[in-house]
Amino acid sequence: MLIVMKADATEHQIKAVVRVIEDLGYKPHAMPGATRTAIGITGNQGSVDPSHFETLPGVAEAIRVSKPYKLITLDLRPEKTIVRVGDAAIGGDELTIIAGPCAIESRNQGFAVAEAVHRSGARFFRGGAFKPRTSPYAFQGLGEEGLRILAEIRDAYGLKIVTEALDEAGVDLVERYADVIQIGARSMQNFSLLRRVGRSALPVLLKRGLSATLDEWLLAAEYIMAEGNYQVVLCERGIRTFAQHTRNTLDLAAIPAVRRISHLPVIVDPSHGTGKNFMVTPLARAGVAVGADGLIVEVHDQPDHALSDGAQALTLEQYEQLVSEVRAIHEVIAPATVS
Amino acid sequence: MLIVMKADATEHQIKAVVRVIEDLGYKPHAMPGATRTAIGITGNQGSVDPSHFETLPGVAEAIRVSKPYKLITLDLRPEKTIVRVGDAAIGGDELTIIAGPCAIESRNQGFAVAEAVHRSGARFFRGGAFKPRTSPYAFQGLGEEGLRILAEIRDAYGLKIVTEALDEAGVDLVERYADVIQIGARSMQNFSLLRRVGRSALPVLLKRGLSATLDEWLLAAEYIMAEGNYQVVLCERGIRTFAQHTRNTLDLAAIPAVRRISHLPVIVDPSHGTGKNFMVTPLARAGVAVGADGLIVEVHDQPDHALSDGAQALTLEQYEQLVSEVRAIHEVIAPATVS
Amino acid sequence: MLIVMKADATEHQIKAVVRVIEDLGYKPHAMPGATRTAIGITGNQGSVDPSHFETLPGVAEAIRVSKPYKLITLDLRPEKTIVRVGDAAIGGDELTIIAGPCAIESRNQGFAVAEAVHRSGARFFRGGAFKPRTSPYAFQGLGEEGLRILAEIRDAYGLKIVTEALDEAGVDLVERYADVIQIGARSMQNFSLLRRVGRSALPVLLKRGLSATLDEWLLAAEYIMAEGNYQVVLCERGIRTFAQHTRNTLDLAAIPAVRRISHLPVIVDPSHGTGKNFMVTPLARAGVAVGADGLIVEVHDQPDHALSDGAQALTLEQYEQLVSEVRAIHEVIAPATVS
Amino acid sequence: MLIVMKADATEHQIKAVVRVIEDLGYKPHAMPGATRTAIGITGNQGSVDPSHFETLPGVAEAIRVSKPYKLITLDLRPEKTIVRVGDAAIGGDELTIIAGPCAIESRNQGFAVAEAVHRSGARFFRGGAFKPRTSPYAFQGLGEEGLRILAEIRDAYGLKIVTEALDEAGVDLVERYADVIQIGARSMQNFSLLRRVGRSALPVLLKRGLSATLDEWLLAAEYIMAEGNYQVVLCERGIRTFAQHTRNTLDLAAIPAVRRISHLPVIVDPSHGTGKNFMVTPLARAGVAVGADGLIVEVHDQPDHALSDGAQALTLEQYEQLVSEVRAIHEVIAPATVS
Repeated sequence: MLIVMKADATEHQIKAVVRVIEDLGYKPHAMPGATRTAIGITGNQGSVDPSHFETLPGVAEAIRVSKPYKLITLDLRPEKTIVRVGDAAIGGDELTIIAGPCAIESRNQGFAVAEAVHRSGARFFRGGAFKPRTSPYAFQGLGEEGLRILAEIRDAYGLKIVTEALDEAGVDLVERYADVIQIGARSMQNFSLLRRVGRSALPVLLKRGLSATLDEWLLAAEYIMAEGNYQVVLCERGIRTFAQHTRNTLDLAAIPAVRRISHLPVIVDPSHGTGKNFMVTPLARAGVAVGADGLIVEVHDQPDHALSDGAQALTLEQYEQLVSEVRAIHEVIAPATVS
Repeated sequence: MLIVMKADATEHQIKAVVRVIEDLGYKPHAMPGATRTAIGITGNQGSVDPSHFETLPGVAEAIRVSKPYKLITLDLRPEKTIVRVGDAAIGGDELTIIAGPCAIESRNQGFAVAEAVHRSGARFFRGGAFKPRTSPYAFQGLGEEGLRILAEIRDAYGLKIVTEALDEAGVDLVERYADVIQIGARSMQNFSLLRRVGRSALPVLLKRGLSATLDEWLLAAEYIMAEGNYQVVLCERGIRTFAQHTRNTLDLAAIPAVRRISHLPVIVDPSHGTGKNFMVTPLARAGVAVGADGLIVEVHDQPDHALSDGAQALTLEQYEQLVSEVRAIHEVIAPATVS
Repeated sequence: MLIVMKADATEHQIKAVVRVIEDLGYKPHAMPGATRTAIGITGNQGSVDPSHFETLPGVAEAIRVSKPYKLITLDLRPEKTIVRVGDAAIGGDELTIIAGPCAIESRNQGFAVAEAVHRSGARFFRGGAFKPRTSPYAFQGLGEEGLRILAEIRDAYGLKIVTEALDEAGVDLVERYADVIQIGARSMQNFSLLRRVGRSALPVLLKRGLSATLDEWLLAAEYIMAEGNYQVVLCERGIRTFAQHTRNTLDLAAIPAVRRISHLPVIVDPSHGTGKNFMVTPLARAGVAVGADGLIVEVHDQPDHALSDGAQALTLEQYEQLVSEVRAIHEVIAPATVS
Repeated sequence: MLIVMKADATEHQIKAVVRVIEDLGYKPHAMPGATRTAIGITGNQGSVDPSHFETLPGVAEAIRVSKPYKLITLDLRPEKTIVRVGDAAIGGDELTIIAGPCAIESRNQGFAVAEAVHRSGARFFRGGAFKPRTSPYAFQGLGEEGLRILAEIRDAYGLKIVTEALDEAGVDLVERYADVIQIGARSMQNFSLLRRVGRSALPVLLKRGLSATLDEWLLAAEYIMAEGNYQVVLCERGIRTFAQHTRNTLDLAAIPAVRRISHLPVIVDPSHGTGKNFMVTPLARAGVAVGADGLIVEVHDQPDHALSDGAQALTLEQYEQLVSEVRAIHEVIAPATVS
């Protein structure tokens, strides 16, 4: 924490701030400048609340310096985390591809897509059984019936199942049928849910919230890890901005930004990140080129008839093409991003 | 829904789109223009999914025309809803003031603030027992102990208690002790929670999410109402933008925007909406001037020692001043906003 | 400037940073903390460029502390600036109202609106002769012909003329015919234009850019003042956010934010700030209630036939009603905002 | 244009809207629906102003359907534009690399960087002589002296010179010394400047504004082309969002979005697009992978001593590494993006 005093702060006010810092058990470092004095604070465990200072007389600003996260940091764990899911992994040398329909709509649809996903060499299958929908009148997913279809797909193809839980009851069910619990963008700050999956034995795929800062996203992961579950995969899926040519603005700079601070693997969702079929493959290529550990993409055997998010789903042919393009890029950049 | 064809769409492609519309049971209206053809769709109940069309050959764009909400609309209920809470009300002629600390920290703190809130003539007391905190290491509220203090305050001062529930278990507790269930900004799209409070007998104060569009916010209210609870109060509390001089950007235009579409009452939170003590009173004045039904503000007897959000809490003196200023404005504009 | 070292920064790296600071002629203040060291910098005139430090080994972050503006600050001039325009003023006790059409379209239109503006007691008339239009094919204003009509209106009604200049040639013309030069949102960082009006004898109305931070806006004013023209009026006119229910999001918290830092008067534009006719009056009320020194509003005698921005222009009757409402609020809050 | 009537609009109001459409010389297409009527408009040349309709009684919304641009569209010119600069080109099969320092600071610095740029095989050299700076007190560039150094660099290395003009006087100078005129983000809607470069014989590199929508950006290009200069290159350089881990948020989805509408080449600026040295190379890889025609990157021989934007400049070694990485990706994806 750095307290910046106003230019006209009195000696008396500066001393009062110093005293408050000492009262809180911290160490003040006054730095008189040409026009104003700044006072550094050290000796704190964890972060200091700026509100202790912001309203004191003579204080212009209280600037937070240390970050409130620990477990997610490279300081704590300098080597990259590899999240293992049976014989598959996220965060290792291999590019992870998670593919499947937005929502499981029927056994036929699920298997038709799964067959193509399996054929592509991907190891993970995605498909929603519980869908968070903006409107209460929209299709909300098949529920447990959807999970059962997903479990059958696992048995048939050996694909690991990634599916979203919307609430604590949903986590109980997902744990029974799936391999990775997805926490969606709208739930990124559902702290009760984060704590619940923090006590799960399954890995967690944590999507970034629509308007989450990097710190908020990393602290959401910290919530999960603070409960003991260290198997967390971050997923950039686009943020909300003024731009209207996409559903969200895919923030690919978040990948190197996460890398710089955290040991957790991070993947990219070009489907929700753009919301437009014709943009998915270019942005998937970009996601791999920027250095992500993998992709999660929506594929549908009949996008025109999808019950949700059809506009962004790839056809099976488009998906096949995507896989071959991103694999080629991954091979080229693999040495570059190792460093 | 309006389907806009590309300039070079063939007659064949246009006919194919028309056929898809008919197959879905809707009525197509082709409108050939100078450079391109547009096709209107009518005959639908509820909204049409644009993804049925966006990927068809020759289609440039599918534009949604009808809105997916019903229960919240003035179309359904032309007169304004007045949410009654015992002998108090939100949405009527009187300006509603909900005041209290961010979090209940102790019996002493709660009563000190409540005494001032009561003295000001306000009818509602706010105070968090469950606090959604960005960091897992920050103070998370007193839990049920906090609710008990709130219930005591109700008994002592006759103030109606407004407090947040973060999850379904929390709703059970809040129902036991409080008068209005608050759904916070981070929970605005926690659909399980919305459905749960939709089955509650208590009114719901629904804060707008940090990056919620007007439609998403109104649809969150629709989720609650679709379960049978029509006692919903909307609350504008600032949105996330690039601006850094405030914690959030208070979007006061949301008040007339809501008024134009919905019969639900809408109030303003200038405390979270700015995050800065010195801005709360000016923005509270603005919120009343724009025509809101009320305010929810944070007050603390010792803001410098608050365990959360101290920087934005008003002192008891500042709060008293705020009440007198906003009441004066409310009197002046009351006739204007009746229309 | 505060340099925050990484947790694993070596003694050697810290010393190297200290040396760079000394080499630049500044004074370093090393503050070793529990987990990392921070180094304060004092002794600088003007702000220090963080890029000198951000890439040095062991540096985690360089945080700017002092602000780069001077002339706009209350530090420099503690009493509020009153911009005088003949016998009228902006920034004094009286609420300033600047009203008129978006664009001057004809002599008849100009006079019809001016008559109503004059009748309302407003002292300033706005009207564009040069219109910045997103499309090259849209109406671009009447040019000098428009300025001539404005000058006639001044002669006829004694109204002070506020009109926009888009480029340096336009400033020459505006100086010849008008009383206040408006710099539009799109030109807020047209630094050549700012320097040019900084050398003008006329006051300048400086609109905030669509995505300008508070600092960028104040520094744009600083550009003008650095050339010697101290007669600057700031104008909040809405920022670009994700919200789509308005054309822009009016950021009324900018008013108290400016007040805290600067002595310059600041007004609000509820017309561009919302882009919707039915929102202009409520937001005008809010702008006055928040403490602005005045308003600039668009009025048209026939909004349905306006050549630009008709959707947001008030009718003459609506304008009259607005004036009476905001005057009532101004009377009520005047004592409050004096403090 | 599509006019959506309110649910309770009367037959009379619908007829009145139809009449207004006919009066304007357009053709109305009324489409009565289950709950409301929509009225399509055809027969218009250019776009229709929604403000003609939005305030008519019974109208809920006026939705713009056709886009106001022409010259930039694939409708007009289906094959991609290749901008030729002497024997070099932008938009062809080869990946374009434009590299150099943010600002030309001295002859030595310019030549040191140019030598490395030339050695890398790039054909274009960038370097600012006129720098748009947020603060009036920051280094503003060497002016004509800088242009002279750039011209020497062209003579010495055969590199094509890309440099920014801030105003019309600057364009005169840039035309004398350089090969491509850059219009910076802050000038994207400086319409006088756009018209001026539209009359230039030199190609124009048009950066996207900080908060420009896709349409606004394309219309800025349309301004240039409408004056007769068809040699326009678009440049995505990041937009302003709430995210604070980068200086701007690089919106790579803009590349496929532009491709879908326009024949103009489009490149990416990962330096301004991130503002952080360690992110430039990953985002450059992503920019090429997404399908951009080229990159513009900042390189400095001594980034720690740069007079502007040092934090984002690459060292000569980093630049060399970037070139080899992006070339490898370009080779891999070239066939993919041809389609």
